Amino acid sequence: MSTTNVSSARPELRVLVLHGPNLNLLGKREPGVYGTRDLASIEQELITVGRDLGATIDSRQSNHEGVLIDWIHDAAYPKDPSGSRVDGIVINPGAYTHTSIAIRDAIAATNLPVVEVHLSNVHAREPFRRRSMITPVCVGVIAGFGPHSYALGLRALVGYVRARVSP
Amino acid sequence: MSTTNVSSARPELRVLVLHGPNLNLLGKREPGVYGTRDLASIEQELITVGRDLGATIDSRQSNHEGVLIDWIHDAAYPKDPSGSRVDGIVINPGAYTHTSIAIRDAIAATNLPVVEVHLSNVHAREPFRRRSMITPVCVGVIAGFGPHSYALGLRALVGYVRARVSP
Amino acid sequence: MSTTNVSSARPELRVLVLHGPNLNLLGKREPGVYGTRDLASIEQELITVGRDLGATIDSRQSNHEGVLIDWIHDAAYPKDPSGSRVDGIVINPGAYTHTSIAIRDAIAATNLPVVEVHLSNVHAREPFRRRSMITPVCVGVIAGFGPHSYALGLRALVGYVRARVSP
Amino acid sequence: MSTTNVSSARPELRVLVLHGPNLNLLGKREPGVYGTRDLASIEQELITVGRDLGATIDSRQSNHEGVLIDWIHDAAYPKDPSGSRVDGIVINPGAYTHTSIAIRDAIAATNLPVVEVHLSNVHAREPFRRRSMITPVCVGVIAGFGPHSYALGLRALVGYVRARVSP
Amino acid sequence: MSTTNVSSARPELRVLVLHGPNLNLLGKREPGVYGTRDLASIEQELITVGRDLGATIDSRQSNHEGVLIDWIHDAAYPKDPSGSRVDGIVINPGAYTHTSIAIRDAIAATNLPVVEVHLSNVHAREPFRRRSMITPVCVGVIAGFGPHSYALGLRALVGYVRARVSP
Amino acid sequence: MSTTNVSSARPELRVLVLHGPNLNLLGKREPGVYGTRDLASIEQELITVGRDLGATIDSRQSNHEGVLIDWIHDAAYPKDPSGSRVDGIVINPGAYTHTSIAIRDAIAATNLPVVEVHLSNVHAREPFRRRSMITPVCVGVIAGFGPHSYALGLRALVGYVRARVSP
Amino acid sequence: MSTTNVSSARPELRVLVLHGPNLNLLGKREPGVYGTRDLASIEQELITVGRDLGATIDSRQSNHEGVLIDWIHDAAYPKDPSGSRVDGIVINPGAYTHTSIAIRDAIAATNLPVVEVHLSNVHAREPFRRRSMITPVCVGVIAGFGPHSYALGLRALVGYVRARVSP
Amino acid sequence: MSTTNVSSARPELRVLVLHGPNLNLLGKREPGVYGTRDLASIEQELITVGRDLGATIDSRQSNHEGVLIDWIHDAAYPKDPSGSRVDGIVINPGAYTHTSIAIRDAIAATNLPVVEVHLSNVHAREPFRRRSMITPVCVGVIAGFGPHSYALGLRALVGYVRARVSP
Amino acid sequence: MSTTNVSSARPELRVLVLHGPNLNLLGKREPGVYGTRDLASIEQELITVGRDLGATIDSRQSNHEGVLIDWIHDAAYPKDPSGSRVDGIVINPGAYTHTSIAIRDAIAATNLPVVEVHLSNVHAREPFRRRSMITPVCVGVIAGFGPHSYALGLRALVGYVRARVSP
Amino acid sequence: MSTTNVSSARPELRVLVLHGPNLNLLGKREPGVYGTRDLASIEQELITVGRDLGATIDSRQSNHEGVLIDWIHDAAYPKDPSGSRVDGIVINPGAYTHTSIAIRDAIAATNLPVVEVHLSNVHAREPFRRRSMITPVCVGVIAGFGPHSYALGLRALVGYVRARVSP
Amino acid sequence: MSTTNVSSARPELRVLVLHGPNLNLLGKREPGVYGTRDLASIEQELITVGRDLGATIDSRQSNHEGVLIDWIHDAAYPKDPSGSRVDGIVINPGAYTHTSIAIRDAIAATNLPVVEVHLSNVHAREPFRRRSMITPVCVGVIAGFGPHSYALGLRALVGYVRARVSP
Amino acid sequence: MSTTNVSSARPELRVLVLHGPNLNLLGKREPGVYGTRDLASIEQELITVGRDLGATIDSRQSNHEGVLIDWIHDAAYPKDPSGSRVDGIVINPGAYTHTSIAIRDAIAATNLPVVEVHLSNVHAREPFRRRSMITPVCVGVIAGFGPHSYALGLRALVGYVRARVSP
Repeated sequence: MSTTNVSSARPELRVLVLHGPNLNLLGKREPGVYGTRDLASIEQELITVGRDLGATIDSRQSNHEGVLIDWIHDAAYPKDPSGSRVDGIVINPGAYTHTSIAIRDAIAATNLPVVEVHLSNVHAREPFRRRSMITPVCVGVIAGFGPHSYALGLRALVGYVRARVSP
Repeated sequence: MSTTNVSSARPELRVLVLHGPNLNLLGKREPGVYGTRDLASIEQELITVGRDLGATIDSRQSNHEGVLIDWIHDAAYPKDPSGSRVDGIVINPGAYTHTSIAIRDAIAATNLPVVEVHLSNVHAREPFRRRSMITPVCVGVIAGFGPHSYALGLRALVGYVRARVSP
Repeated sequence: MSTTNVSSARPELRVLVLHGPNLNLLGKREPGVYGTRDLASIEQELITVGRDLGATIDSRQSNHEGVLIDWIHDAAYPKDPSGSRVDGIVINPGAYTHTSIAIRDAIAATNLPVVEVHLSNVHAREPFRRRSMITPVCVGVIAGFGPHSYALGLRALVGYVRARVSP
Repeated sequence: MSTTNVSSARPELRVLVLHGPNLNLLGKREPGVYGTRDLASIEQELITVGRDLGATIDSRQSNHEGVLIDWIHDAAYPKDPSGSRVDGIVINPGAYTHTSIAIRDAIAATNLPVVEVHLSNVHAREPFRRRSMITPVCVGVIAGFGPHSYALGLRALVGYVRARVSP
Repeated sequence: MSTTNVSSARPELRVLVLHGPNLNLLGKREPGVYGTRDLASIEQELITVGRDLGATIDSRQSNHEGVLIDWIHDAAYPKDPSGSRVDGIVINPGAYTHTSIAIRDAIAATNLPVVEVHLSNVHAREPFRRRSMITPVCVGVIAGFGPHSYALGLRALVGYVRARVSP
Repeated sequence: MSTTNVSSARPELRVLVLHGPNLNLLGKREPGVYGTRDLASIEQELITVGRDLGATIDSRQSNHEGVLIDWIHDAAYPKDPSGSRVDGIVINPGAYTHTSIAIRDAIAATNLPVVEVHLSNVHAREPFRRRSMITPVCVGVIAGFGPHSYALGLRALVGYVRARVSP
Repeated sequence: MSTTNVSSARPELRVLVLHGPNLNLLGKREPGVYGTRDLASIEQELITVGRDLGATIDSRQSNHEGVLIDWIHDAAYPKDPSGSRVDGIVINPGAYTHTSIAIRDAIAATNLPVVEVHLSNVHAREPFRRRSMITPVCVGVIAGFGPHSYALGLRALVGYVRARVSP
Repeated sequence: MSTTNVSSARPELRVLVLHGPNLNLLGKREPGVYGTRDLASIEQELITVGRDLGATIDSRQSNHEGVLIDWIHDAAYPKDPSGSRVDGIVINPGAYTHTSIAIRDAIAATNLPVVEVHLSNVHAREPFRRRSMITPVCVGVIAGFGPHSYALGLRALVGYVRARVSP
Repeated sequence: MSTTNVSSARPELRVLVLHGPNLNLLGKREPGVYGTRDLASIEQELITVGRDLGATIDSRQSNHEGVLIDWIHDAAYPKDPSGSRVDGIVINPGAYTHTSIAIRDAIAATNLPVVEVHLSNVHAREPFRRRSMITPVCVGVIAGFGPHSYALGLRALVGYVRARVSP
Repeated sequence: MSTTNVSSARPELRVLVLHGPNLNLLGKREPGVYGTRDLASIEQELITVGRDLGATIDSRQSNHEGVLIDWIHDAAYPKDPSGSRVDGIVINPGAYTHTSIAIRDAIAATNLPVVEVHLSNVHAREPFRRRSMITPVCVGVIAGFGPHSYALGLRALVGYVRARVSP
Repeated sequence: MSTTNVSSARPELRVLVLHGPNLNLLGKREPGVYGTRDLASIEQELITVGRDLGATIDSRQSNHEGVLIDWIHDAAYPKDPSGSRVDGIVINPGAYTHTSIAIRDAIAATNLPVVEVHLSNVHAREPFRRRSMITPVCVGVIAGFGPHSYALGLRALVGYVRARVSP
Repeated sequence: MSTTNVSSARPELRVLVLHGPNLNLLGKREPGVYGTRDLASIEQELITVGRDLGATIDSRQSNHEGVLIDWIHDAAYPKDPSGSRVDGIVINPGAYTHTSIAIRDAIAATNLPVVEVHLSNVHAREPFRRRSMITPVCVGVIAGFGPHSYALGLRALVGYVRARVSP
């Protein structure tokens, strides 16, 4: 997975990055715990890493479970007739990780490869954060590396997609 | 419950049919499992069956828990002053079946007869799909007959309403 | 699912309807709760609805778990050499719903389509009535519509069988 | 509750005494634990005590859950047109105490006063014997006094019935 | 257990009857549920029944867990050197039934025969009343017959003690 | 709930305030957590607030479950023949909140309006403090406001009682 | 906590009052249970009480979990540059009380003092209403006093805020 | 345990082989899973193996819990006065394995050595098949070897009985 | 921890030893299990060991939860103005170990070092004896050494206290 | 499965027999419970039975979980290049039965047929011995026949392997 | 338990002290929590205390569950023919306390007196540390006194052994 | 995190990569599931990626829990006096993930940064694989990307270590 000898013939990938509830407060919210970087800064880094990996990033945040489901649907079955299916999703479902069967079903219904990421090591926190409704329908999960979790998730997703296309 | 000798004096009923999260993907989503019929086709059949039973159908889908609650409220207490209370609701709450106390409370608050339907036999799936928050506030439940569950649910609701009006 | 344009070429179906423990007391038992209709009256309605749907009804009741199992076996593998396999079963397992793995295994062993019905909305009652051992091996379940549950169950079963024969 | 000044005007009561599975082995089965008295001897004592209390005893044993249910039904709704409803039931449900929702429903359906008795102190045995499906639909329970539990149960039932008739 | 042919040679028994918390309110507390008889009236009946059975009754009530334990101790190991060990205890532990391991240990430590009684059918009430800490260390339990439960319990205890003395 | 326009015709109310185990240590016990105010100071404030609301306060503390039960009984059914029933109780059951079915039954038996108060937010503490045996038999609960919880509870109780008298 | 000697130098506070799902139906929904006052009337009382306490009230209702989160965020980090942080929140999360980790995280992220209120005594209702996801991140909780719970909550919040500013 | 040097002096043993519910369908029921051999073929093999081991086989099947209990009783305490006690039982309790306390008690009451056998490896199936009510009262258990489980069970039983007779 | 070279300059310690419910019966209660030594003999040994360690012993027993709490309070905050705070407590809470949150809170409130002791190995007994409410607020626990547990506990406490004074 | 007409053409099988922790103490450890035969004697019998069945036995014991895993690996993928894969394994995993996911994974990874055996009837012992991590990846299980369990297990394994080779 | 008047005739005892996983890091690992003393220093103290008590100490540490089992076996049944059985074991099983049924069985199999010790108060830590598989087969347990726990454990073991030899 | 502009001044890091039980079978074991790459190939890739990131890799596999613990200890506190502490660990604990408190404690005791990796998405497998004892003491976790999980874990670890050194 060396990132230097990327063939120019490599097809450009399209990746949707979704941020769930309360992640819009990053940088403002308990900086001692969550760090001082805000979401815009993370999105900027993802665009840079994406460019390196040959992937275009579309990054969105919502506190609404229904809006997140709408976006997952649209990524697989675009409403806009000129739109095209994305190649995969990186999602930090935030608190919906532990409660949303609806997001789980949305992911399962799209048949898109999805990587779940978390800033903190959720398994080291309260018991009710140890159960993820989302993980079983994802390719994999990455948790505990702060904002870095996103870049690792993007890397993992791109590697997974490319391997399926040309194993 | 023979459907032929329907008296012409029978008052027309108004029924709201609600589809919860991810049901907009019917026909696209895993056709091997969920069949190739889409929601529009099911709604068309419901209108036909409804005409047969003397019921007008208003069918809506949303991925948003709050929107579903708003619609249930409006069915009982219309915001539009010229609107009138519906006679009953057929609801497929999708994934919210298992998590939404708020939809349960909305149903209980309206005092409308509600029939819960499911395409698949939810009790034969994952354990977390075996608990329904909704069933205890419904008249009854019908599950496992694919798109046919809706028509059976409509029939059951109309029968229930007519029996209460003229037992 | 209009019931009028039934083709005369439609093959006649044979349906077994089974009633579990205590259902022989219908009409006598707490009429305020269970209504005043007795089992004979329900069976009469099922014969009428069955005629409409092109199905012959064989309806039986027993308080014995073993007798119910014997009947399910005989429906699939008739002891009488001149007997033939029924096309499906509608069963109200009563209290055995929640405890009988043996009836569950009998259903699974026959490979017949079975529809489970209940007079009351069992999910709105005591916790120990919320678990069904039977549902996972059935096509679907209908509960909460009083005696009407049987007619809906018969309709659902016939629809399911006909769709499998000529989809 | 002195048993001597029994008025001759007292109407004679009819009591059904039911013995569940394995109780036919009393006297043969582990005499060190269950004593050396057999069921016939207990029934004889019940007849004697019943005579004292002004009650006729009909005592039966079966290992079949379904047979016990049939008997409970017949006690309330006699098949024989010349039969009459009994005044109450004393039941030792044996192992069915812990598993039979069907017997529970049979008791609830008859609306007869029922007293549950046990030879041993079931709550002091294995955990799975601590849950009774039957107790909540009975007037009361008596456990732990060996064969004497039956006589106490009969006494309790007769006292309960007479108090309701002439409080 | 006929109560008429009581031999005059029968040694007199001494029985302690204990009433736990809130039982002093009997007759005042929700008479619709608990009846209008107060504790003094029940104690009077117990003395009468006791005389019939050849037993002297010492009846006491306390709302204090510790006082009940002291009394159980004193019944087995009297502080007063001229006192003598009682022959058995009838106890209605009230709410301490479900929580007091200390009373359980007190009973186990005395090695006296104890019969547990309840006015109501505790197993038909809230779930937290279904667990008894006391029953496993008792000879048996009698519940559900109102004030009559005490007389049945006294009878059961006396029968048990006499059987041990002269089996 | 303005406290200024109190009518002089308003009948004076009598309120019992009960403090459960360990509350006598207030002011001494972990002042960093529980503050530096002692029970006497809180009682003084309650008397002042009570005067404002037209209520006489009788405030008592005990570490004994049985003593608390005795006091609750006496508040409803005074032993002293010249005594009269209080109008309501404000209780901080301390640790007995989570274990005492006996205090629960005492409250239920008196039929007095009772308000439960806690200094700390008990639901944010250890899991075993999340279950209250007491709350279900109270009018309401107030927790988390330190000594201020008492004044709020008194206010809530007086408002509740006056509303019942003259709604 | 007398409300008369309020110093004029007291800084004015700004309080957000949030009402969760189904609370818009107050007054319409089961008036026998929830009373006949509607939300507008409660809001009017809160404004009056607030004026007395030196607090401005901003009261809002939504059935959407995401909207409630957005409002909590905006209360702490106003989108409008001319807006300022509120001093505290009174929230009745309705059915989301028991399921929403997302609202819990939103509250924790804002670092605002929040008081949770409920009309009914939620701990005395169905078991699934006994768990609050919200309480652990609140200052305190008040439940069971009908519409009065809000006024008590407002009072508690203002007292808490003022004590932190000038202890 | 070589089977060749069987002494002619070896006393002939009598073994009862019991088959529980649904086992009459062997060979017909899902042959892909349960194999194509029917019960008659297995019984034939058991007779042959039995002859080799010096044991006479009496093999019976029933779907009725009560009938199985009757047979277990009769094996230990024959109703027919000329009958004699069998030397042991091989039982495949089928679905009753997991639910029947009554069969468990019947086995315990007879004091006969019993070996439990299963065709499939029940521990590798659904969770509710992992609990056996029967195993704790058996000598041992053999599961997973298809029809071969019976021959192994017979062998184990005969070995066990002979070792007890002449250790 | 050699006990010989005790400096005469060592300050004398004061230790309270508390015995919970039923421990007054030691020596009388099941001597086969609990030994024949009574509480007076144990207290005598503790005084001797205490003298060796430079500690004065005050030993008390009560069956009353409230009395034990009062004594713990008085040990830390003596009611008698001439009294002084003890240096630590050795407690055998008996059956209250498993149920008393009130004793736990009393210990936590005193901020005294407390060592929990048990005669028997409580973790090897019934499941309900495996949970200790007390242990989390103690310095440590010693169980299983019969009367010797007390001497070990005293030793452990004195060692702990001296280490804190002069580490 | 008659063992006499064994064809000479029958290919010789190689079977690994593994004994888990503490089984090296057989014969020394509680002979009253586990019998007086030691492991060497059992291994000798297995060699004899194996010769009869045409199987060579390699029997090993270890108290080390890792060593058992190494041996299972080596049986399937011999380190020694001249070694060959065994035909099956008989394993008594001892205490690792209940805890070792690693041994379970080792068995699953080798794809060898494995038969699990136990000396005692583990389901009749402590609850923590009722769960087997190993059974679901085995062909079957044999428990309760003392040292005889091994011979039965070997017989079952050989029968299973031969049936797969020439069904 | 004075340690001075030790008779010179006292037979010398041999004690094995076992330290489980991670205890080799004592002194290096989180000195703020576990103190700065390393294992060598503790072993030195044990030798000194042992000399005082008339006991020879053999102290060993391993991170391997199997090695610990081997050592326990060897202590009871020495491999070396000239070796002799030790008189008892003091064990700190570390993390294996909570998971190792194999070590539990090893202790039970040796029939040696074993005392379990822990540095910290394990019951006050994470829930998964509250369950000990080892305690039920030990004489007793000592926890929470840091390195001092070992000396207390040795003292307790020697006292126990001597009492058994010459009670 | 672009990997091209790596400064030559960057200090070389030393990373230990640990593979738990059964991972030595990679490539041989169910290639359809786990792929055809063996451990040697993965280790080769890690060396290459490590070189790119400025890290030396030491990769080891063991099936022994104790050996893995020894290696973790040695990585932090080298036995060899010339050895030096590694900078971090990447560990795939295999089946020990779910059971080993000892490995958890070893990691916590070393105070080294550790990243947990898994080939498969463990949360989508059997329930007993959903609990990780290891995660709470790790920096983070990466699961589901096949052999690629290792490279991602190495990248995450190096990023974490470098950020701590020069944030």
